[in-house]
Amino acid sequence: MPKISHKANAMPASPIRKLVPYSEAAKKAGRKVYHLNIGQPDVETPEVMLNAIRNFSMKVVEYSHSAGIESYRKKLAGYYKKHNIDVDFSEIMITTGGSEAIEIAMMTCLNEGDEIIVPEPFYANYNGFATQSGVVIKPVRSYIETGFALPSITKFEKMITRKTKAIMICNPSNPTGYLYTKAELEALRELVQKHDLFLFADEVYREFCYDGAEYTSVMHLTGINNNVVLLDSVSKRYSACGARIGALITRNKEVMAGAMKFAQARLSPPTFGQVAAEAAIDTPASYFENVKKEYTARRNFVVEALNKMDGVFCPNPQGAFYCIARLPINDADEFCQWLLEKFEYKGQTVMLAPATGFYFSPEAGKDEVRIAYVLKIEDLKNAMICLEEALKVYPGRKIMEQVKEKAI
Amino acid sequence: MPKISHKANAMPASPIRKLVPYSEAAKKAGRKVYHLNIGQPDVETPEVMLNAIRNFSMKVVEYSHSAGIESYRKKLAGYYKKHNIDVDFSEIMITTGGSEAIEIAMMTCLNEGDEIIVPEPFYANYNGFATQSGVVIKPVRSYIETGFALPSITKFEKMITRKTKAIMICNPSNPTGYLYTKAELEALRELVQKHDLFLFADEVYREFCYDGAEYTSVMHLTGINNNVVLLDSVSKRYSACGARIGALITRNKEVMAGAMKFAQARLSPPTFGQVAAEAAIDTPASYFENVKKEYTARRNFVVEALNKMDGVFCPNPQGAFYCIARLPINDADEFCQWLLEKFEYKGQTVMLAPATGFYFSPEAGKDEVRIAYVLKIEDLKNAMICLEEALKVYPGRKIMEQVKEKAI
Repeated sequence: MPKISHKANAMPASPIRKLVPYSEAAKKAGRKVYHLNIGQPDVETPEVMLNAIRNFSMKVVEYSHSAGIESYRKKLAGYYKKHNIDVDFSEIMITTGGSEAIEIAMMTCLNEGDEIIVPEPFYANYNGFATQSGVVIKPVRSYIETGFALPSITKFEKMITRKTKAIMICNPSNPTGYLYTKAELEALRELVQKHDLFLFADEVYREFCYDGAEYTSVMHLTGINNNVVLLDSVSKRYSACGARIGALITRNKEVMAGAMKFAQARLSPPTFGQVAAEAAIDTPASYFENVKKEYTARRNFVVEALNKMDGVFCPNPQGAFYCIARLPINDADEFCQWLLEKFEYKGQTVMLAPATGFYFSPEAGKDEVRIAYVLKIEDLKNAMICLEEALKVYPGRKIMEQVKEKAI
Repeated sequence: MPKISHKANAMPASPIRKLVPYSEAAKKAGRKVYHLNIGQPDVETPEVMLNAIRNFSMKVVEYSHSAGIESYRKKLAGYYKKHNIDVDFSEIMITTGGSEAIEIAMMTCLNEGDEIIVPEPFYANYNGFATQSGVVIKPVRSYIETGFALPSITKFEKMITRKTKAIMICNPSNPTGYLYTKAELEALRELVQKHDLFLFADEVYREFCYDGAEYTSVMHLTGINNNVVLLDSVSKRYSACGARIGALITRNKEVMAGAMKFAQARLSPPTFGQVAAEAAIDTPASYFENVKKEYTARRNFVVEALNKMDGVFCPNPQGAFYCIARLPINDADEFCQWLLEKFEYKGQTVMLAPATGFYFSPEAGKDEVRIAYVLKIEDLKNAMICLEEALKVYPGRKIMEQVKEKAI
């Protein structure tokens, strides 16, 4: 039997999806599982988007241009203008989800063995894309105590070697919910300019900023037009994860020309999804206002509930729909599995994502979990009750002395 | 300005799409261009497929399972059974087009520097996927004189080195239209078994076999269950190239487990396309009978017309919707560009794909073009008239002595 590749062996299994068999077993055993483990929002996809699909009128479902349907790219340029991002449609390449935008950006900009600095914890699949393209991730640690703010620029500079080619951020951040300030982004701008690095920014949660906080895009930064690669997606914006429509946006013409060759090899992004995404740009502002109101309420509820629990700490994030909480436990992986395998409260349990999957450093995040507050308040209430009850009886719970010591 | 990667520089631009600017210019100048350059069929997508999209009923366009929607995979297993391909749904992974199936197969099975033997001419994008994953293509040449039949197994064996990991075929073939016989596939089976190689088969043109010729799948071959990886797509089958739905099928559990890790990194294949593709399985047999009748008529017309032209030779292919013709010219790239830039006949011209783009060997195919007979007979008639007239006046035409010499 022929052997599979080293890369296939090295590819990390999804840390978010690895607990799925346990949740399936729990459901089969009749238990209700609250899914706070995955960023699949329950918010309905905008009507304009679904109507575009229901009114799909092409007789032949053709390939589109490899860079995407031109009318969509032009309309998308208009969408960005509303966010003060001034790009021409020729600077936009439509991709199959944000995932493909990241894959193509890595392959286009980094050689095998090149290094990319990423603040951790970070979106776990960056690991997969880096492994795929032979890129080496160098994590710079951010901490729950500061709400996962940008690590100091000195720390970044210490990581820079001859092989460093790029810095990658996610803003607002999955998994932390942290929203970078303008000052933090300006500091990154200087660093990127000084060392002539690429700056990749995954900004798929742009619409999810709370408390009136100001959103700054890497595209707002001046003097680094040739360094910035924006990675985007309609998945979260319109609660349309399954459409698989994203975008790679850059003013660097060489990067765009290189990226286009990868895009041509795979022919085109999905036509149905593009038709829907083009229509989605007309989603009324009220939709986003409602969504924002709903998520703010959910976040407020979850963060408050978590901080009220004995020995639990959760910073208050200003973006996306995630938060990371520190629990009085020693091993989040074991705890999350135990929740599904061994625990129930009134026939219910909760599924969380161990934060370890979002840290690159091996021992980091062992007492942290990521919570996606993507369910209705009523469900979140039940989920938080489950979690509180679970922590009371969990055999691996830290004794309070350990917790207090850490808190100091 | 930071530099792009070596890989981005090495990626081949699509040889099929590189002439697009010339055809756009021709159209802007008011000329009618007959597109025989690209496998974008004009056949309508089946009604059952379009209806499924028009009746799309999910309220939230969710991610699917990374391996695809389970009900679709199960139904697809039923589709394969009708073609005597006995696979369980767990042996099927849905991909974003056949393109992604090839990408994932290469990354899963071959290491950087490993060699894959491919009969040439072959589908040009195999080059792109190989470059992407650092795989080395070793071409085995097939010839127009034998209709592009499988090169002798001795030739394959001569190519095998310590680094050879796989053989890849396309059956029926794009770009040649050649349909491998059972005997040819049995010969490949023995070779693959003897050297314990992977056998990749791109069988996306399964439905397009003519003259009652028997279709043999690599999945019909016995004793090589762990070697075979089938690469499939709904693009051509249902004239739904834009749906971007394909599949990677293998009975090798290690390969499937490895492939799944790449699939999880990119989350899921497109939901809309999967819903449409699941419905498409109910396409009535009459649809395919009509399509087959239509393509047979088109092929008959084109091949006959080509062979009637002075100095032109075109074998009669039994599958797909392509043929390769040898023209009395010295440089197909120049000729195809000239057709768009300099030629017109009654305000019309024709766009062909130079065959050079499908050969790996640098000097091969210089007097050959690939013709996709994807237009209605009426359009094909005009296109063939254009070609015939063009060959009469083309300044780079070979003198007849050269043509005859080659024919001998």
